[in-house]
Amino acid sequence: MKTTPRGGPNQVLSTTTYAVVGTRPIRHDGTDKVTGRAIYGEDFRLPGTLYGKVLRSPHAHARIRRIDASRAEALPGVRSVVTHADMPDIEDTISDLGEGSFSAKWAADNIMASEKVLYRGHAVAGVAAVDANTAEEALKLIDVEYEPLTSVMRVADAMASDAPLLHEDLYTDSLGETSEKPSNVASHFQHVKGDVDRGFAEAEVTVEREYTTSTVHQGYIEPQNVTALWSSDGQLTIWTSNQGAFGVREQVSSVLNLPVSRIRVIPQEIGGGFGGKITIYMEPVAALLSKKAGRPVKMLMSRAEVFQGTGPAPGGWMRVKIGAKRDGTITAVQADLRFEAGAYPGSAVGAAAVCMFGPYDVPNGRIDGYDVVVNKPKSEAYRAPGAPQGAFAVEQALDELAQRLEMDPIDIRLKNVAKEGTRRIDGPRFPRIGAYECLIAAKEHEHYQAPVGGPNRGRGVAMGFWMNGGGPSACTISVNEDGMVGLVEGSTDIGGTRTSSAMQAAEILGITAEDVRPSVADTDSIGYTGVTGGSRTTFATGWAAIEAARDLLGQMCARAAKIWNVDPSSVAFRERQFVTSADSSKSFNFGELGRELFSTGGTLTGRSNVSPRGVGAAFCVQIVDLEVDPETGKSQVLRHTVVQDAGKAIHPSYVEGQMQGGAVQGLGWALWEGYEFSEAGAMLNPSLLDYKLPTALDVPMIDTVIVEVANPGHPFGVRGVGEVPIVPPPAAAANAVSRAIGVRMAHLPITPYRVLEATGVIEPEPVT
Amino acid sequence: MKTTPRGGPNQVLSTTTYAVVGTRPIRHDGTDKVTGRAIYGEDFRLPGTLYGKVLRSPHAHARIRRIDASRAEALPGVRSVVTHADMPDIEDTISDLGEGSFSAKWAADNIMASEKVLYRGHAVAGVAAVDANTAEEALKLIDVEYEPLTSVMRVADAMASDAPLLHEDLYTDSLGETSEKPSNVASHFQHVKGDVDRGFAEAEVTVEREYTTSTVHQGYIEPQNVTALWSSDGQLTIWTSNQGAFGVREQVSSVLNLPVSRIRVIPQEIGGGFGGKITIYMEPVAALLSKKAGRPVKMLMSRAEVFQGTGPAPGGWMRVKIGAKRDGTITAVQADLRFEAGAYPGSAVGAAAVCMFGPYDVPNGRIDGYDVVVNKPKSEAYRAPGAPQGAFAVEQALDELAQRLEMDPIDIRLKNVAKEGTRRIDGPRFPRIGAYECLIAAKEHEHYQAPVGGPNRGRGVAMGFWMNGGGPSACTISVNEDGMVGLVEGSTDIGGTRTSSAMQAAEILGITAEDVRPSVADTDSIGYTGVTGGSRTTFATGWAAIEAARDLLGQMCARAAKIWNVDPSSVAFRERQFVTSADSSKSFNFGELGRELFSTGGTLTGRSNVSPRGVGAAFCVQIVDLEVDPETGKSQVLRHTVVQDAGKAIHPSYVEGQMQGGAVQGLGWALWEGYEFSEAGAMLNPSLLDYKLPTALDVPMIDTVIVEVANPGHPFGVRGVGEVPIVPPPAAAANAVSRAIGVRMAHLPITPYRVLEATGVIEPEPVT
Repeated sequence: MKTTPRGGPNQVLSTTTYAVVGTRPIRHDGTDKVTGRAIYGEDFRLPGTLYGKVLRSPHAHARIRRIDASRAEALPGVRSVVTHADMPDIEDTISDLGEGSFSAKWAADNIMASEKVLYRGHAVAGVAAVDANTAEEALKLIDVEYEPLTSVMRVADAMASDAPLLHEDLYTDSLGETSEKPSNVASHFQHVKGDVDRGFAEAEVTVEREYTTSTVHQGYIEPQNVTALWSSDGQLTIWTSNQGAFGVREQVSSVLNLPVSRIRVIPQEIGGGFGGKITIYMEPVAALLSKKAGRPVKMLMSRAEVFQGTGPAPGGWMRVKIGAKRDGTITAVQADLRFEAGAYPGSAVGAAAVCMFGPYDVPNGRIDGYDVVVNKPKSEAYRAPGAPQGAFAVEQALDELAQRLEMDPIDIRLKNVAKEGTRRIDGPRFPRIGAYECLIAAKEHEHYQAPVGGPNRGRGVAMGFWMNGGGPSACTISVNEDGMVGLVEGSTDIGGTRTSSAMQAAEILGITAEDVRPSVADTDSIGYTGVTGGSRTTFATGWAAIEAARDLLGQMCARAAKIWNVDPSSVAFRERQFVTSADSSKSFNFGELGRELFSTGGTLTGRSNVSPRGVGAAFCVQIVDLEVDPETGKSQVLRHTVVQDAGKAIHPSYVEGQMQGGAVQGLGWALWEGYEFSEAGAMLNPSLLDYKLPTALDVPMIDTVIVEVANPGHPFGVRGVGEVPIVPPPAAAANAVSRAIGVRMAHLPITPYRVLEATGVIEPEPVT
Repeated sequence: MKTTPRGGPNQVLSTTTYAVVGTRPIRHDGTDKVTGRAIYGEDFRLPGTLYGKVLRSPHAHARIRRIDASRAEALPGVRSVVTHADMPDIEDTISDLGEGSFSAKWAADNIMASEKVLYRGHAVAGVAAVDANTAEEALKLIDVEYEPLTSVMRVADAMASDAPLLHEDLYTDSLGETSEKPSNVASHFQHVKGDVDRGFAEAEVTVEREYTTSTVHQGYIEPQNVTALWSSDGQLTIWTSNQGAFGVREQVSSVLNLPVSRIRVIPQEIGGGFGGKITIYMEPVAALLSKKAGRPVKMLMSRAEVFQGTGPAPGGWMRVKIGAKRDGTITAVQADLRFEAGAYPGSAVGAAAVCMFGPYDVPNGRIDGYDVVVNKPKSEAYRAPGAPQGAFAVEQALDELAQRLEMDPIDIRLKNVAKEGTRRIDGPRFPRIGAYECLIAAKEHEHYQAPVGGPNRGRGVAMGFWMNGGGPSACTISVNEDGMVGLVEGSTDIGGTRTSSAMQAAEILGITAEDVRPSVADTDSIGYTGVTGGSRTTFATGWAAIEAARDLLGQMCARAAKIWNVDPSSVAFRERQFVTSADSSKSFNFGELGRELFSTGGTLTGRSNVSPRGVGAAFCVQIVDLEVDPETGKSQVLRHTVVQDAGKAIHPSYVEGQMQGGAVQGLGWALWEGYEFSEAGAMLNPSLLDYKLPTALDVPMIDTVIVEVANPGHPFGVRGVGEVPIVPPPAAAANAVSRAIGVRMAHLPITPYRVLEATGVIEPEPVT
């Protein structure tokens, strides 16, 4: 094994340059975070706080016959106990939270089980006590009588005609028709483009293969936490670390049947989310415990609870078939996707279907998707939800096709790459996109030019697509006495979006990023803002910052006119100066006029509420070199380069951080991560010792190339960068392993054990 | 002694009525406050917090020769020690905080003494340690070498030509001329109207008397507190209970030489201020301790520190002379006011001069005011600063005049009452005011009609005037999904101003007070807003709420036009409905359109920054019946009625609360409260056992009459109600005592001891 090459330049292939946008200022919240001063959910303290704990099901599938909490309630120090019986009757409502829909009834059942428990770890009751140990003790005193039922853990079993049913009232919605019998299939959809049969008839080469992926967790370092205070006037306040305070407010509102205006969600700093901190878990439990006890209640999950009680990314089964001409031109594609929704409907299979062939201009295609409930935790969003799974199948099939055609893997992608005007199989046409530019940048990269070198080594290439999101964001900007500004937004800052919003405002105002003090407000204090998810924040909240800045500039022009005693229509803000056509001797820069405001009628505030369309799609190409140890089966990543179209990188360092972070998480999917279950449905590896997240020691420094193909739908061309870099690595690594060992690896993760199975060193066993 | 009559109806003499304004909804923050859930400064906790304590001077006047903190720094658990040497060199700046000006250098010296200590309790050093006891221990290990100097405690002594000087560089500014020699007189001013000598020559009766008042404390129940965190990136965050976060930010900025944008002040709930929580004390000490220690530092004053280390209301000496015709018409007035500024210049003598004759149309008058430094804590604002003292003199002299002329005390006031157009001695002319209406309402009140009854009883009447304040306020309002709104303002809520602002917004928006969720933001999150002081908040921040609501309505009209596909100019908001002249069948109420916003382009935010002029003056008449026990000298208040012009009472209950609270505090000045000093300048009663604040047991239920003479300078006619009710009681009670015992009481407080002196039961001793 050679030493891993580290370092290597990060490149930005820039188009337009700006004064602030595209520079790399230090993030406003950086010092507080690296010095441990930032306040995360667990750091938050209220006087008189009780500590809450959750009782969780030991069964993967069981009927709850009876819950008797009287012994727990009698334990000294216990202040309240709640079960599903304490939750209000609610009307079922379906709302869209930006990344997946939300059914209030299923959500309520997932928060505390009603008639049945549907996975091991399913919450059954909550206890609040004067300290955490007492609450923990009280859990043991809650008597739950279960009637165990047969569990189903895999889509194949769940779709069998005689499968035990998780929900007796779940009828399959298949292509707009409702099934006659209930089943474990929540929905079946189909996207069709062109004539697939004719396309395959025209094909000269065809590749077809089945793939499976495992349940994987987002692996955020900070566990879920909440403090709730239900005041006796009916006002509920929730302090929590989450990806969107307004989303929490909406969900709590639905589940507890409270108007949103009775709920104030105060966001704390967040230690990672990756899609997993959009859905609520303990918030309503803490709220109900607080209501009963008349005290604030704080709850914090253990790592085992995070694994077993929150929503991971779905595993599943996929079949992909690609037909092509000898020159590599794809004539038809077909896919069958069956994803594990977990205990309640709603896997990422829809997004997987949208994204899997997104990078390519496919003339004929058909995709069938099945959303299947199984006795696992309800799956949730995880960074480009569904796309890594889909790409794992498609990008491997393409790689196999390239091998069959003896084509360069980038060339076969270039041959079929999607461009402006390309229609996706699911319908929409692309506006200006950077898929081609990413492939060219990858092909020309020194990494791709260099030989792989050495035996047992392979180079894998894969491409990913993610739609990105838009949705509502709000912003206000106020001017301080010193001419600097405070910016208030509603977006949880996970990856530096305080700064990327501040920079966009600064660019408009003609000041520096440091002149802007950004802060994230609670739900009572800023207009509705969607979750930090869907790679939307720098795009949409950044746009809100731009619009608030423009609103402010308009008012400042009017003030300048008043100060200069000139006609307001003669004043404009040009080249970072307020000027008037009425008198060329007069001008202010922003700070000068900002400082004048206080003595000329008072300060001014800009405000905005935006819900921008014009979302720009993201593409990413990754190159992975690795070496497989033939004796141990271990794969060592030697070099990894990420090429991605950012549209415009507002803060290139943070874009590079997203690219590197996404790539490392994708390598986690590829090589190490996966829930292991016992036959009875118990997770066997619910700790960070046994569930292997990649660390800095496991991966090389990851090189990045930011390609900038401006999104025409955003003032600075921003696309959104957070999600797409996780999409290619599972496929790229699988392609690299396959090229190293000469065998296709169709199952994730590609553990040493599976490599040894594939190379015949050990006997294969059935994939679980 | 008869039983005290309690109860009695509160009356509102209303003019205009509104849907929300003038009603009595429950305050939004009420439940949290009465259930102990509201977070005050002391409730706030940060992980890793150190606890700070202040070393205070044992001398009333001394030179600091040397400070050696090495023993304290060596004590285990001590993390930082600071003295004035840790404070930056600053340029002196004078800023106006709404209630009195602010010199950065004096403020810095007051926060930690530099060369001299100027009062007993003057802060000398600060210590931060792992717990409060260790910090307290460490104080004893700080060695300070003092050179004691002679102290001066009274204006007469301080103004003597051979008086010891507090400041060797303090030259008197007298009528625009600077003195040649330094002295303890910081300034002398004079207001003149008409020809005073001729006026007195025309007088047929003249009353002239000297009066003195004591140092009194605002007596807020919550002591000063602060948590400061100076991050290593130079950003300073301060959590504190104060009357205005922006004022704290400005003062800290001046004293620590930091731009305001490097400082974020996060206001906590406040347990009373009354003017005493505008000035900063421990904030810079905590900040410097935090900077040195790299940890958050929390500080909390003891009650003894609050008395001796913060700014009480100034005591002083006054001479007043009034001349009148036999029919009661005043021909001339004259006053000489000498107020104890405390250790640094800036007493309320200026406001006293403005207010004392304010209720009356005086043809000829002259007022001389002297601001005199003495070795007491720097005096600060206390509810209508200076006005209670001035009224104590003028209203007693008028009462004496009425007795001499055998006139009814209300009639003599009606004879001379100020009206629209009346010019005050200090210059300005009144717009529409309600002084006359208040006197009429008092005269017609059942209380005034009823006999006083019984021996040793007296009825006193007095009148008060306060200018009220305006100044900058900001507000934003955002619409929630349920059509309700969140309102963000920057005003500390002391007396229910969240609700009074919300109500004004609700009135404009055509919704209920409960539909508005108001919150108070930090300095990074809302536009500049002046302190909650000067009775300005319901007036100015309420106006900001009105303007933000109007801004929101304008945008909502445009949205309605878009939804209805009609011309925007055809849409208006009338009678709580959005309507269009283009189609009479279409309308929305606020909630209906509010709920539509989310699906029609996103929510909307209204914003405002106002700095309203048109401040309306406040007048108050009070009637006090009391009985004096001839044996003990104790005065028992039997009945007390407050009549006050509120302009328009937004929330009558809160106005009544201000009237009753101000009256009770005024009775405290009148009968019980006063700092007692030893000859060496030590406060003898620095605890709530020895410094007697009135409690509910000491006073009867106080009846109120709200007179509404709309202020033409405010959309709803608001004047401001917080301060003026404290003005009349010292004089009214003194007049009542004098009428009960037949002797004038010219010294505050009118303790049983002083009554017994006055009635000859005991030998008089010199007033101190």
